[in-house]
Amino acid sequence: MDGQQTVGEDVDVLNQVREMIEREGGLSAWAKIVVGVSGGPDSLCLLHVMERLGADYGWSLHVAHMNHCLRGGEADDDMVSVALAAMQRGLPCTIEVVDVGGVAQRRRLSVEEAARQVRYGFLLDTARRIGAAVVAVGHNADDQSETVLMHFLRGTGLAGLRGMLSNTDLASLHTVSERGLTTALGPPIRLVRPLLHVTRAEIEQYCQAHGLAPRVDRSNLDTALLRNRLRHELLPLLETYNPNIRELLRRTAAVAAADYDLIAAVRQTAWSQVVQTQDTQAVVFRRSDWCKLPLALQRSTLREATYQLRPHLRDVDFVHLEQAVDVAVRGPTGAQATLPGGLCLTVGYQTLRLAGKEVHAPRPDWPLLWSDEPLPVTLPGQTRLPDSGWRLEIRWWNGPKEVALHNADCWSAYFDADRLGTSLALRSRQPGDRFQPLGINGQTKVADWMINAKIPRRWRAHIPLLIHHPPVDTGREQIAWIVGWRIDARVRVTSDTQRIVHCVFREADETSR
Amino acid sequence: MDGQQTVGEDVDVLNQVREMIEREGGLSAWAKIVVGVSGGPDSLCLLHVMERLGADYGWSLHVAHMNHCLRGGEADDDMVSVALAAMQRGLPCTIEVVDVGGVAQRRRLSVEEAARQVRYGFLLDTARRIGAAVVAVGHNADDQSETVLMHFLRGTGLAGLRGMLSNTDLASLHTVSERGLTTALGPPIRLVRPLLHVTRAEIEQYCQAHGLAPRVDRSNLDTALLRNRLRHELLPLLETYNPNIRELLRRTAAVAAADYDLIAAVRQTAWSQVVQTQDTQAVVFRRSDWCKLPLALQRSTLREATYQLRPHLRDVDFVHLEQAVDVAVRGPTGAQATLPGGLCLTVGYQTLRLAGKEVHAPRPDWPLLWSDEPLPVTLPGQTRLPDSGWRLEIRWWNGPKEVALHNADCWSAYFDADRLGTSLALRSRQPGDRFQPLGINGQTKVADWMINAKIPRRWRAHIPLLIHHPPVDTGREQIAWIVGWRIDARVRVTSDTQRIVHCVFREADETSR
Repeated sequence: MDGQQTVGEDVDVLNQVREMIEREGGLSAWAKIVVGVSGGPDSLCLLHVMERLGADYGWSLHVAHMNHCLRGGEADDDMVSVALAAMQRGLPCTIEVVDVGGVAQRRRLSVEEAARQVRYGFLLDTARRIGAAVVAVGHNADDQSETVLMHFLRGTGLAGLRGMLSNTDLASLHTVSERGLTTALGPPIRLVRPLLHVTRAEIEQYCQAHGLAPRVDRSNLDTALLRNRLRHELLPLLETYNPNIRELLRRTAAVAAADYDLIAAVRQTAWSQVVQTQDTQAVVFRRSDWCKLPLALQRSTLREATYQLRPHLRDVDFVHLEQAVDVAVRGPTGAQATLPGGLCLTVGYQTLRLAGKEVHAPRPDWPLLWSDEPLPVTLPGQTRLPDSGWRLEIRWWNGPKEVALHNADCWSAYFDADRLGTSLALRSRQPGDRFQPLGINGQTKVADWMINAKIPRRWRAHIPLLIHHPPVDTGREQIAWIVGWRIDARVRVTSDTQRIVHCVFREADETSR
Repeated sequence: MDGQQTVGEDVDVLNQVREMIEREGGLSAWAKIVVGVSGGPDSLCLLHVMERLGADYGWSLHVAHMNHCLRGGEADDDMVSVALAAMQRGLPCTIEVVDVGGVAQRRRLSVEEAARQVRYGFLLDTARRIGAAVVAVGHNADDQSETVLMHFLRGTGLAGLRGMLSNTDLASLHTVSERGLTTALGPPIRLVRPLLHVTRAEIEQYCQAHGLAPRVDRSNLDTALLRNRLRHELLPLLETYNPNIRELLRRTAAVAAADYDLIAAVRQTAWSQVVQTQDTQAVVFRRSDWCKLPLALQRSTLREATYQLRPHLRDVDFVHLEQAVDVAVRGPTGAQATLPGGLCLTVGYQTLRLAGKEVHAPRPDWPLLWSDEPLPVTLPGQTRLPDSGWRLEIRWWNGPKEVALHNADCWSAYFDADRLGTSLALRSRQPGDRFQPLGINGQTKVADWMINAKIPRRWRAHIPLLIHHPPVDTGREQIAWIVGWRIDARVRVTSDTQRIVHCVFREADETSR
């Protein structure tokens, strides 16, 4: 080491890191550890601390540095200084030169995001290649405060308020391997942040005390524009409100992390109770079970399903989630909500289905007509819908009339038999179809009504319509029921009704009630 | 009403409030409702909206106004204007004049806090007196954003991030009744905030559209200095980071409220599993069960216990909670942590006890000596500790030596019999006592060591010391064991040990293992 005497601050940093390691784990004795070193103060301090602690823990360290090719000669000087630092310490070192600007262009990412993804990908590859199970990086306590604040201002809820984790799965961060090594396969690699409780000021003092000469990264890639504004403008102002704001943001992160973990554990238990099927294409919830979950778990299961289908998505913000929950709880059958990553939530009769918009949705789980031919139905009698798991049952209703005054279930409808007549059929809509929806004064076009009812466009042509020839208005075919949605006001059961017909759609495996 | 034509904005406010009532409940049809009216824009808008909706819902409204006696003539003018507004509408009205400054002095509260408490107390009393179950107040969406931000800057975790609730128990707010009516008894009164989703700008437009002439409260009592700074300085700056920050803060509140509710439900289940006893004086947890809870529930149960003992406490901040959790999990027997409201958490051998500092703590549940007389003990043999539920068992150890190399339990210790000798006693510490703690080089004073070990002062004189007369160092009494804490290095079991003595303290109802 550099032979300088240690000072007060130094012992503090060392002990803080040691205490954190003892408390939070992740760096076991005799571990092989990749240390990400940019050459700045954080990573130089990290390397120095890891080397000193490594003597006690028996670690073998491996330095990793990525040249982003973004700052020309300056970046090259960084690279040389890191290589020299490793050499002086007798540590193995991997350096990779990546044209991050090119990656950003090819993958249509911001330069900051591309740099981040490529860097983590490089660290992951390096760890796999040398057989290390852990990667250490130099994020500090001030980075953490800034991250928490940034997430708060973006609105990412508890998940975001956790800030950066001190010990996490590296592959869970979105990484892009430029070497072609697949990042998804191979043993899991932990990412640890040993300096996450050490402030920037303490790190600078440590560097001074140990004669470390950090490079200054002028472009400050890690700390893009927003972060710099937070650091130099917003945090100083917030300190006039609460002088301990930085510390408090870190505590907020710690508290949020524990709350998040608890909710995640509860969600895991609930998951199996509400998920009907899941694969890489879609997650399907049983709608009635899902709707019984507490609101927090409704949000949490939707968020989790989103991450399972789009593992590389970062921070689903809660505006999207809230809208999706609202549609799922209150939306009519067929309603849809958009989620990030090109995902779409579709409300089925008994299901909620989350899948990519590009994934061809299976036929919905409610009765549809796939033929243009009218399908005659008999009264009383049963009629199977072709290409569908459903049948229509029609029978005389002898139960109490009160029951027949309201249609509790969208697949069940009661009609005044004398107004309905006996010449019935199912068919899909035709141009010019009109009806008189119950609850609305006057006639309306079926086409307009379907749009207003938010029936998805591609299913509008397949919604069954119950057609009748009213005895009172001879000859003219009329629409008695847009199945699943609304009956016609003229055939409803009233206090004057003498005889009642009950129509109900049932799934094939459902017996009559 | 005032006969003016409604405009666009107006319909919006009315519908927003109607929708909120339908969705969140709290204002049932035919309810008797106290409306808190200061005379400012929020409460005038509230009164107007409540009157219009009341026609549909069949509400009977009662206006309540408190004159804080803080602004002299201005406050009197407010009072008159509210009384007139009620009279014009034909609504009953209660007005109370309270010297808030005096209350603040008597109760040693800030004027803002005193005003808040007295005002809610007045609303509660009024509701009880006229037989209303609901009180409505005029907090708006901007108040909510400011509250969430204020709590975030104070660090109150999820509980605080919920902001103000749209429907809550009025008695749960700290209220002071100046009339002498007890606020703790009587039926629960709900506090609702119908304008919580309506912005300040919408309220002002509504007032204009309806020709309402709000009074301007210059002192802005509700919106003390901090709130004004947030409103005029911080929020405008945050809007340059995220133009939707106000809306986002409200969404944060909604998300936090659901997460909080879920954790509260999980906590409720856990509560009965970890609480041993509870009354108005103390909550006692079973320590081992409590320690197995996830961190979030450890925090949540401590917070809940704090509120149960101090129902009027607002927002326990998480710095206190974190320290208390840390002491509870890692602290030695006897360790203490301070919580707000003069509460103190004490770590027992098998319990965690939360109680007021003024409550006399019962004798701790571990072996203590209450007499100054030495207590001879026999080897092998059993000795009961007087005035204690504990006994000391001493026997020859014939089990494997490996077991005897470490003391797994603080109440059990193994000794080298040949170094210990057979002349043993228990006594409390005496001035000048020294020993050589295992794991530390050299001798130390028992008094100093007890301080360093954080043994609570009042119990230090009662900790039993196992005394022996080492055969190898004839005559001189030495300390073999500070019971519960540390043995002396000189009597420990080593690879050379021939015969082993095992000493163990057991509670009276515990049988030998």
